[in-house]
Amino acid sequence: MTVVDPEPMSQLELHDDRLFAGDPAQRGVARELYDHVRDLPLICPHGHVDPALLAENRPFANPAELLVIPDHYIIRMLYSHGVGLEDLGVPSRDGVRVEADPRRVWRRLAQHWPAFRGTPTRLWLEHVLRQTFGVRVPLAPHTADDVYDQVADCLAREEFRPRALFERFNVEALATTEPALDPLAHHRAIASSEWGGRVVTTFRPDDVVDIARPGWADAVARLGEVTGTETHTYPGYLQALAERRAFFQRHGATATDHGHPTARTVDLDVADAARLYQRALSGETDAADAECFRGHMLTEFARMSCEDGLVLQLHPGSWRDHNERVHAGFGPDMGADIPAPTDYVHGLRPLLNRFGNDPRLTFVVFTLDESTYSRELAPLAGHYPAMLLGPAWWFHDSPEGLRRFRELTTETAGFYNTVGFNDDTRSFPQIPARHDVARRVDCAFLARLVVEHRLPLHEAAETAVDLAYRIPKRVYRL
Amino acid sequence: MTVVDPEPMSQLELHDDRLFAGDPAQRGVARELYDHVRDLPLICPHGHVDPALLAENRPFANPAELLVIPDHYIIRMLYSHGVGLEDLGVPSRDGVRVEADPRRVWRRLAQHWPAFRGTPTRLWLEHVLRQTFGVRVPLAPHTADDVYDQVADCLAREEFRPRALFERFNVEALATTEPALDPLAHHRAIASSEWGGRVVTTFRPDDVVDIARPGWADAVARLGEVTGTETHTYPGYLQALAERRAFFQRHGATATDHGHPTARTVDLDVADAARLYQRALSGETDAADAECFRGHMLTEFARMSCEDGLVLQLHPGSWRDHNERVHAGFGPDMGADIPAPTDYVHGLRPLLNRFGNDPRLTFVVFTLDESTYSRELAPLAGHYPAMLLGPAWWFHDSPEGLRRFRELTTETAGFYNTVGFNDDTRSFPQIPARHDVARRVDCAFLARLVVEHRLPLHEAAETAVDLAYRIPKRVYRL
Amino acid sequence: MTVVDPEPMSQLELHDDRLFAGDPAQRGVARELYDHVRDLPLICPHGHVDPALLAENRPFANPAELLVIPDHYIIRMLYSHGVGLEDLGVPSRDGVRVEADPRRVWRRLAQHWPAFRGTPTRLWLEHVLRQTFGVRVPLAPHTADDVYDQVADCLAREEFRPRALFERFNVEALATTEPALDPLAHHRAIASSEWGGRVVTTFRPDDVVDIARPGWADAVARLGEVTGTETHTYPGYLQALAERRAFFQRHGATATDHGHPTARTVDLDVADAARLYQRALSGETDAADAECFRGHMLTEFARMSCEDGLVLQLHPGSWRDHNERVHAGFGPDMGADIPAPTDYVHGLRPLLNRFGNDPRLTFVVFTLDESTYSRELAPLAGHYPAMLLGPAWWFHDSPEGLRRFRELTTETAGFYNTVGFNDDTRSFPQIPARHDVARRVDCAFLARLVVEHRLPLHEAAETAVDLAYRIPKRVYRL
Repeated sequence: MTVVDPEPMSQLELHDDRLFAGDPAQRGVARELYDHVRDLPLICPHGHVDPALLAENRPFANPAELLVIPDHYIIRMLYSHGVGLEDLGVPSRDGVRVEADPRRVWRRLAQHWPAFRGTPTRLWLEHVLRQTFGVRVPLAPHTADDVYDQVADCLAREEFRPRALFERFNVEALATTEPALDPLAHHRAIASSEWGGRVVTTFRPDDVVDIARPGWADAVARLGEVTGTETHTYPGYLQALAERRAFFQRHGATATDHGHPTARTVDLDVADAARLYQRALSGETDAADAECFRGHMLTEFARMSCEDGLVLQLHPGSWRDHNERVHAGFGPDMGADIPAPTDYVHGLRPLLNRFGNDPRLTFVVFTLDESTYSRELAPLAGHYPAMLLGPAWWFHDSPEGLRRFRELTTETAGFYNTVGFNDDTRSFPQIPARHDVARRVDCAFLARLVVEHRLPLHEAAETAVDLAYRIPKRVYRL
Repeated sequence: MTVVDPEPMSQLELHDDRLFAGDPAQRGVARELYDHVRDLPLICPHGHVDPALLAENRPFANPAELLVIPDHYIIRMLYSHGVGLEDLGVPSRDGVRVEADPRRVWRRLAQHWPAFRGTPTRLWLEHVLRQTFGVRVPLAPHTADDVYDQVADCLAREEFRPRALFERFNVEALATTEPALDPLAHHRAIASSEWGGRVVTTFRPDDVVDIARPGWADAVARLGEVTGTETHTYPGYLQALAERRAFFQRHGATATDHGHPTARTVDLDVADAARLYQRALSGETDAADAECFRGHMLTEFARMSCEDGLVLQLHPGSWRDHNERVHAGFGPDMGADIPAPTDYVHGLRPLLNRFGNDPRLTFVVFTLDESTYSRELAPLAGHYPAMLLGPAWWFHDSPEGLRRFRELTTETAGFYNTVGFNDDTRSFPQIPARHDVARRVDCAFLARLVVEHRLPLHEAAETAVDLAYRIPKRVYRL
Repeated sequence: MTVVDPEPMSQLELHDDRLFAGDPAQRGVARELYDHVRDLPLICPHGHVDPALLAENRPFANPAELLVIPDHYIIRMLYSHGVGLEDLGVPSRDGVRVEADPRRVWRRLAQHWPAFRGTPTRLWLEHVLRQTFGVRVPLAPHTADDVYDQVADCLAREEFRPRALFERFNVEALATTEPALDPLAHHRAIASSEWGGRVVTTFRPDDVVDIARPGWADAVARLGEVTGTETHTYPGYLQALAERRAFFQRHGATATDHGHPTARTVDLDVADAARLYQRALSGETDAADAECFRGHMLTEFARMSCEDGLVLQLHPGSWRDHNERVHAGFGPDMGADIPAPTDYVHGLRPLLNRFGNDPRLTFVVFTLDESTYSRELAPLAGHYPAMLLGPAWWFHDSPEGLRRFRELTTETAGFYNTVGFNDDTRSFPQIPARHDVARRVDCAFLARLVVEHRLPLHEAAETAVDLAYRIPKRVYRL
């Protein structure tokens, strides 16, 4: 069926010049810039790695559980090509029989590997296979078993346990993300172990803030219990949140994170907020109330950040669980979250007017709506002292997406109103690949500025190092 | 008045490397990829060529009627520069005297030819003139008559009749688009002729679905007559549509097409739909009802597609006939249709929740709002099994537009959730030019991936062939 | 703290090839095109230079007052990095003590100079320092005083007075912008002087049109006084505006300018407009009325433009004074204006339906919302005879922004539905730098078309000259 006769590619290669422009002058400068950053330690100020991995340091189970099943980029793409989530070993909620053989899951990935041409998943996974596991053949149906075996063999060895990889990856600091009620036992275990890796938590209070979530009132009651505070009043609720933030800080947290459907913020006066809170506890609120309360609490969290110094991160604009059937069958985070247009200029104004000029606040804003980069986000970050731009996120954490981020924000916000790279990943083994892609894309962008005589080489080199290392370390206090 | 002394360009040339990047490495790869696709047959699964051309196979009348008057890209640009539509020979509705001499129409195009610098019309028309008609001088006021004469001479010859050109163009399959009530006489004539060209119809039921159109009730009554079905009830109406689809399928249709103002879909229950239908028949509906009914019928058509296998195509987001005066004077399709922001994430949800997971459905979605490529469309197509992305459409069927489509959708949706190229043209002679531009732009994009070491050459070559030929053939079952 | 050892850059250089692509073929063509335009006189049809400069021709005070304090691009960026506006010498409203030493202001800029890497401000200011003031060292904390001294020395010399610079800059015509009630004394002074420079005004009536502005009724009363017209009736108000336009035309105006929050236009009938006007005079109107009246007056101004021939310019889409604290402390134009999504397709329809087909109207539309370039603005300008596209504006008047403008508008609107470049600057000394950036970016874009065989070289050269000189001169009748 193929009209092209493919030359056999005998080797899986990670070319030294990957992601650099073809033009020799630009490529030469990109190489030179990249030499300054390729070996810098990784600062990972925002991500979703499970801290149990590093607390327990057990071997990873098998290639499919490590690299396929928990990766929503991979399972959504395979699902879009007709592969059932149950056939990928994704645990089902509704009793559907799920593939139990990880090797068969892996073969399904190999079979649909062409679907990933041109995607960042292709780059990330090849980086992991080649660099971490030493795989030398391209993934394909006829190589699937060999690749599986090679990765599986590695996983059985001591030097592929999580802590060994953490060190080999040269991670200087890794932030995980936990909900407000998490006891942080894994972080305590890591801290009290003899191991020296720096793993900190991040305070993510969505479950105790979003009054529209089922179980919110129970979560708030538990919040009262764990903090020993009366959360049946609004002041008590605020007090409990402040105490919980302090608890997270004692476990290393330097930031909070907030995943909201929109970028709306609200600045209610205390009496109105208290009344809304009471109505929420009584279950008398609707969707508009929930949006209002979430927006108000962002402003409250900005106030708390001014006091305790935690960086405030806002990740808005995803319609979660767009596909009802998938959500019913398999739950959240199955690759069915779809971005929606996001309004920052009106949405952020209440918060920014209250705290945007406060030198104590660091407010990092992300987006899934690239049309806002040049229209709203760069102008806001290029004016308000408190506001910085998070890097290209999620669907846009990719070569083209990272490039667009720089092209669309730099001229208005500069480089120094951005916070460097966040890998934001659940996939521990992909961390080096993601940082490498971001470093290469930033070097390629800077190389263009150099070649077009918009920035001298030595300033570009300093900027590359700032973006890769110094800025995230400073902004996130890591 | 010109300060630049133009070198006389003695030759109209179509350079072999056109649309490939200047960088020699990238250009070399692009050439190599393009060698794999340049001579592949053309699959034209969506377009607006008049089937009478191929049924009757008469000579084309003259260069202006062939290349200028029916081309809304050309007449709108000339109109924007102050040329009256009547002076372009466009038939008027209001009795304005219309230019009757096609040569004078042609001269007006030549006189304003610089207005088309940098536009796809320039590329397409030069391709037609040089490649199809052998013209060797650039179009300009002083060459207008010579070019006219050369094209006119060709048109008088047997080998420039529609069927001969169809074969010379190497068209393997051509889909036209007809309204639901069309008797498809031309398609029958083609099928029963000795000629072997494959020309199929596409079912476009907007006129019997949009209850806001004047004459809708009459159209529905006619629908009842031609199908022998009672269309004064909603079930009868659905039955009539299903029969009409079957009729279209018997004339080769493999797809339906729907041109809606928005991407809104609705999934009414049967009783509500029936009530709305009855109110529409009684003329008691308003604009919101019409939007609701159109949206509901999209979901119904998805259901029918699951049953009969027709590909469902949605072309939303154009404000038709923005210019009242032009519409009053000359009717629709005069280049005054202006795109508007389009919401897919909320709009498509009812349809996708009902049928987006159904393996029987192929749902191809287009857009005129490029801000939705990376934000909404690629994430949706990269998740839902039923949904695929139509190529860059209309204003965006152009070198920069096609490039942006790949840059903005590939990283999330991959290449294989897109459907290859549609020329979507009313202009029969432009078909090869449009496919050639699309093939070149895809090869140029793939060449960049190769040069940046994001994809090996042999995979890029296979992808180029897939996009140019195999994917549209498979997706549209042609 | 720096891990990169910066090579000392001994020279501040403006490279001859700046802003041209690295690819040698493309760069070679860009150079050749740029040779045709580099020395063309500057046509400045839209800007905000203070005409008093040229009327009085006094020496500029000092480097900070010339280059830092009035530049909202610079002060907003420094403010975003925590520098107080008072520390930049920006006059405060609220009695805060303001830095009085211009040298200290200059040092603060030098200290934060890396914040401007990759921004157009960097390009513009280096152009000014090198080209106009002969500075040969890069700006940095340790060179700040030397650079300051060199600029200050220049400013004391005769050949650095405004009129001398005007001539040295090769400005052929400069339009300033004045509110409707301005007596235009400076323009009269220039006209009656022996100096031959062409400085014209532009009619900007926002203050007498926006009924929501505090003091509107007083402004309208003054409008009546200065024109000797009864402005307490709507017909009198229109008459007064027409007379005021004629007054501006007698002082050289060839255009009007309108800065509106949105692109909404309205076409009220006379009686409704008159009633709304009366209610506005009585102070009985709300925000929706104000939006309606502004929109209606745009249509009225289009009508007047048909009569008196003034070019109508619309600059919509900026949320002014987003930061309340900065506005309270320092007033407007402090870099806190943030763009918002702008709807042209619905917004402009009333005006375009009334006058968009009128050959007497020239309607130039700008945007801060780049998502509208390809979706709405290019299709509108590529159809309506009256409508043209203003160049990339404000945040987008930058290398990447100007490039995107061409990439996103040319294929639909062509080059000849755009109006060439507007520097739109308040900064007199930056005028040459801004035109130079625009000319270089246009040449780079055209060079890509040439190298990709989309346009022959001699046509590209003619287009470059048209964009740089002939089009703005013709469109703005300068």
